[in-house]
Amino acid sequence: MRPFDDTPLSRDGKVLILAYDHGLEHGPVDFEDVPESADPRHVFDIAQHDAVTSLAVQKGIAEAYYPSYEDDVTLLAKLNGTSNLWMGEPDSSVNCSVEYADELGADAVGFTLYGGSNHEIEMAEEFRTAHEEARKRDLPVVMWSYPRGQGVKNDTKPGTISYAARLAHELGADVAKVKYPGSTEGMREAVEMAGKTEVIMSGGSKTGDRDFLENVKGAIDAGAAGLAVGRNVFQRENPEQLLDGLEQVIYEEATVDEALAAME
Amino acid sequence: MRPFDDTPLSRDGKVLILAYDHGLEHGPVDFEDVPESADPRHVFDIAQHDAVTSLAVQKGIAEAYYPSYEDDVTLLAKLNGTSNLWMGEPDSSVNCSVEYADELGADAVGFTLYGGSNHEIEMAEEFRTAHEEARKRDLPVVMWSYPRGQGVKNDTKPGTISYAARLAHELGADVAKVKYPGSTEGMREAVEMAGKTEVIMSGGSKTGDRDFLENVKGAIDAGAAGLAVGRNVFQRENPEQLLDGLEQVIYEEATVDEALAAME
Amino acid sequence: MRPFDDTPLSRDGKVLILAYDHGLEHGPVDFEDVPESADPRHVFDIAQHDAVTSLAVQKGIAEAYYPSYEDDVTLLAKLNGTSNLWMGEPDSSVNCSVEYADELGADAVGFTLYGGSNHEIEMAEEFRTAHEEARKRDLPVVMWSYPRGQGVKNDTKPGTISYAARLAHELGADVAKVKYPGSTEGMREAVEMAGKTEVIMSGGSKTGDRDFLENVKGAIDAGAAGLAVGRNVFQRENPEQLLDGLEQVIYEEATVDEALAAME
Amino acid sequence: MRPFDDTPLSRDGKVLILAYDHGLEHGPVDFEDVPESADPRHVFDIAQHDAVTSLAVQKGIAEAYYPSYEDDVTLLAKLNGTSNLWMGEPDSSVNCSVEYADELGADAVGFTLYGGSNHEIEMAEEFRTAHEEARKRDLPVVMWSYPRGQGVKNDTKPGTISYAARLAHELGADVAKVKYPGSTEGMREAVEMAGKTEVIMSGGSKTGDRDFLENVKGAIDAGAAGLAVGRNVFQRENPEQLLDGLEQVIYEEATVDEALAAME
Amino acid sequence: MRPFDDTPLSRDGKVLILAYDHGLEHGPVDFEDVPESADPRHVFDIAQHDAVTSLAVQKGIAEAYYPSYEDDVTLLAKLNGTSNLWMGEPDSSVNCSVEYADELGADAVGFTLYGGSNHEIEMAEEFRTAHEEARKRDLPVVMWSYPRGQGVKNDTKPGTISYAARLAHELGADVAKVKYPGSTEGMREAVEMAGKTEVIMSGGSKTGDRDFLENVKGAIDAGAAGLAVGRNVFQRENPEQLLDGLEQVIYEEATVDEALAAME
Repeated sequence: MRPFDDTPLSRDGKVLILAYDHGLEHGPVDFEDVPESADPRHVFDIAQHDAVTSLAVQKGIAEAYYPSYEDDVTLLAKLNGTSNLWMGEPDSSVNCSVEYADELGADAVGFTLYGGSNHEIEMAEEFRTAHEEARKRDLPVVMWSYPRGQGVKNDTKPGTISYAARLAHELGADVAKVKYPGSTEGMREAVEMAGKTEVIMSGGSKTGDRDFLENVKGAIDAGAAGLAVGRNVFQRENPEQLLDGLEQVIYEEATVDEALAAME
Repeated sequence: MRPFDDTPLSRDGKVLILAYDHGLEHGPVDFEDVPESADPRHVFDIAQHDAVTSLAVQKGIAEAYYPSYEDDVTLLAKLNGTSNLWMGEPDSSVNCSVEYADELGADAVGFTLYGGSNHEIEMAEEFRTAHEEARKRDLPVVMWSYPRGQGVKNDTKPGTISYAARLAHELGADVAKVKYPGSTEGMREAVEMAGKTEVIMSGGSKTGDRDFLENVKGAIDAGAAGLAVGRNVFQRENPEQLLDGLEQVIYEEATVDEALAAME
Repeated sequence: MRPFDDTPLSRDGKVLILAYDHGLEHGPVDFEDVPESADPRHVFDIAQHDAVTSLAVQKGIAEAYYPSYEDDVTLLAKLNGTSNLWMGEPDSSVNCSVEYADELGADAVGFTLYGGSNHEIEMAEEFRTAHEEARKRDLPVVMWSYPRGQGVKNDTKPGTISYAARLAHELGADVAKVKYPGSTEGMREAVEMAGKTEVIMSGGSKTGDRDFLENVKGAIDAGAAGLAVGRNVFQRENPEQLLDGLEQVIYEEATVDEALAAME
Repeated sequence: MRPFDDTPLSRDGKVLILAYDHGLEHGPVDFEDVPESADPRHVFDIAQHDAVTSLAVQKGIAEAYYPSYEDDVTLLAKLNGTSNLWMGEPDSSVNCSVEYADELGADAVGFTLYGGSNHEIEMAEEFRTAHEEARKRDLPVVMWSYPRGQGVKNDTKPGTISYAARLAHELGADVAKVKYPGSTEGMREAVEMAGKTEVIMSGGSKTGDRDFLENVKGAIDAGAAGLAVGRNVFQRENPEQLLDGLEQVIYEEATVDEALAAME
Repeated sequence: MRPFDDTPLSRDGKVLILAYDHGLEHGPVDFEDVPESADPRHVFDIAQHDAVTSLAVQKGIAEAYYPSYEDDVTLLAKLNGTSNLWMGEPDSSVNCSVEYADELGADAVGFTLYGGSNHEIEMAEEFRTAHEEARKRDLPVVMWSYPRGQGVKNDTKPGTISYAARLAHELGADVAKVKYPGSTEGMREAVEMAGKTEVIMSGGSKTGDRDFLENVKGAIDAGAAGLAVGRNVFQRENPEQLLDGLEQVIYEEATVDEALAAME
């Protein structure tokens, strides 16, 4: 297990994952507002922004486009994921083996765990297999740790988020991607529970610039290593602008006002 | 992953798959109108028409007849499929391994995914195994991407078809076979969502010459790479006639009227 | 895949399988009328009749008795099968691997598929594994193709039998064992649907000599390759007598009257 | 497959298995009357009686105690078994692989099959794996053949016991351990149905000396090879005494009166 | 199987496991009273107390922190475990393979079995795999033997605890961790049922010093080898103080009063 700072996911110990698996998880609806966002090349281009430390995509996107971007983009292969046509308890099919991700040139792998789902145990065991194979290949592991399902009433409650962060830590993730618990204090608790596992907040659905930057700033102040963001970037007409602002907040210890100024 | 144009499925970047797995999927009823269509040799003969770029069959048909046609027919081994005696949620048994398909001399493999079924996740994981093995053997992969089951109210709605095309892309298919969404516009959306994955429309049940050609023309105009057709060919007394017309529409950029003229 | 006539199952392209797995499938009750039929040696002796081209038994019977008969009996190892104590949807446990059947000296393997059962998909996948292993070892494969379960209202309807024959063909069986559909016409349809797969009728429960021979004659006239018979042979006091008659009908193109005469 | 008489289970073709897996199957309650019976050493000592041809224990007992007794006791490793805390349909977890049993020095292996349970098929397939591995290592296989579960109304009915014996035979067991069907006639039927598979009766719960010996005598007279006994031995204050009597009945063709006399 | 005294778990045949998997099993709530207990380094420091013979943690904690403590702490890798978000019948996902535990430098492995759960059989089979792999690597195996689920009304009843201890013994555990049955007599019964398997009591939720030491003393007097303790140590402001007392009771045959004196 490499120190996080030595992994390709890190820039000065901080991280910004551009997540782009929405075509699988949510379907074309997420691309409606900015139609070119349906084209993976558009997002691979965005991913070359200095603020972005890796791009998270499913296997099909990786094998079709990554060969053209391998010098410029750090690839995080998201190993599992499922369409929202699925009506069962939260679950995620393993769409890519670690072996194949490695062949594709992935620099890291990502895996979703729905704690509290009736499929939690099966998912945790699939995570084990992926995790141990990733360790053999020295690929850092990011867990999308999202409590969800019949065991979870409220999935953004601070206690739930900090439990999610702890799960990721106890199970061996290098990075825990969790929902923002609504406050700096909640995020700090999550960071404390995660031990040496780095915590990043997930961007969620699109929000205004200031609100979004304030949440990210709150997370960074709480000790989070950064952010995984999708819709808040690719659903913007000018995604680089927001990335300029995020770069200030995440890597430059800027205030939200300074970040907003940098975006103009 | 080879560029699609370099695969045996392509003729000038276009594709016409003759599908002949109806004996498994629907049973003898599909052969009633044209009894000789029950004989695989009849369909292997049709598959030698220049318009046809591959013939999709199940393992048993492949091993019994392909040795006599291997110089003249491109074989697409359909790996899964189930009888319609099955009363459970949509599912498909894996009847042929990629290894065995390769031994049989298959040039490509095909796999059904029922997004939205309670078996979606299991099927997606079986697809992963087949896909990764096919990549090792440089066999292109065609996904029959058919949302169906408790999660799917209307399986020909444009939004459903474009989601189906995107699923195929994100999961790594070279070609996505989808139902015709009823309009050129719907098909264009599917093509856009599929990225580098080629989209082909499935022929469906038998329709009149003009109607059928107009749908195919609509799909081609929308950017589809072509067609997978079964009943609309083998349930015709003179299947070569329709293939003459399809050849015009798919490969020659002909209008429907020109194609109909070429069929006379 | 060897041509059927070259396999040990064939005598001049015809086949008579003596089936003896009733102790597993039905229990001791099938042996009540002719108590010595419970002793496998009794049935191995019958299997030496010239009309019999192979004897189908489960693993336990094969390993205990076949070593004493290997020069005189062709062994068809039935790979799956289940007791009728089983109350679930029709299913069959795989009791013998192809590898072990081969070690026992089996000349062919047999496998039951219950199309329409809630276990159809699982059984079809187990069949795939067995089929592909059998191909490696050049062992012909006989499918007991018996639609049954919640998807099947009437399992001897001609359309069901011909579907059963087609399933066996599409999935790769060399021989499809189906129930007699009640008429020569129904059997002919099954034979047509089976392509190069040979079709044989299953003997079913004990019936009178003439009735039974007429059914077999009807099947042969319809193009069937022969018969798999169990109770109609071993539940008779003089099983060789019926085999004399079956030999006439199956291999000698005799009429039923000629066959009955040969039995006297 | 070795002839039974050549296996370590046999003494002159007869067998007495001392079964001691009650701590797993029933729990401490079975040791209450004779507290020292909870100590495996007590039972390993009893197992050195000349009448005992093997001792059946679970893996944990074998690995802890067998090294001290390997010169004096024949080890039958019981491969599956489950606590009676289990509330589901009858089932049995596989607690020991054949490979590990062999490493422990086992001379034979034992396996429970609950025919008629909703887990029958799964258990039969686990049995297949164990059986074929045992054959590779020349370890004889004893099946505890106990019809039980939703498919079984009465598990000591003669027809059920003889079916149980036949199941063991068809699936490949060398020895079938069945419940005593209540009469010599019932046992004879079971023996007949088992072909070359040896049948032994299971001792069941503790009964008086004469009653117990009469049942065993009845089984021996019916052709059974012997007995598997647990509680009737280790729940006695003087277990060697009963073993003296059993030795007379099983190996010396003694009457029950002679056996009782030998016990004094 | 090494004698227990030769294993790294033992100090003079006695054992004190510091258990620290509460972050996974219970979540952050267990760290609320003593916030620094959320930091694994805090607990690794405690684990260096002479009284502690090993520290039980999940894989993620082990790989992140053990490299800094490998000279000072004996590592017991807990292989399975599940969050309490899980709403199904008691079950535990296998989060770490024995192979990986060995690579991490683990000195022993731990495994939970919920006897009586609807997942008991699956868990017992997972235990088999882990146990046999651990034997190959000479890693002692500790079973958390906790009857729980629909088959268990009262999980601290003496008969249940002694059954739990026996299960661990029959299945091959070196050490059985069981709940304290409420009395020395109950614990003695458990110890007797466990044969050569060492029995340790689990500490449970936090209690007062005297009460806790009296329970431990009762267990030791009953023949238990020691204790696994978590919350009663890390939820104390001064955990070393209680460990001083436990050291007296477990290793020095001290009375509770002597132990309390040693804590001052």
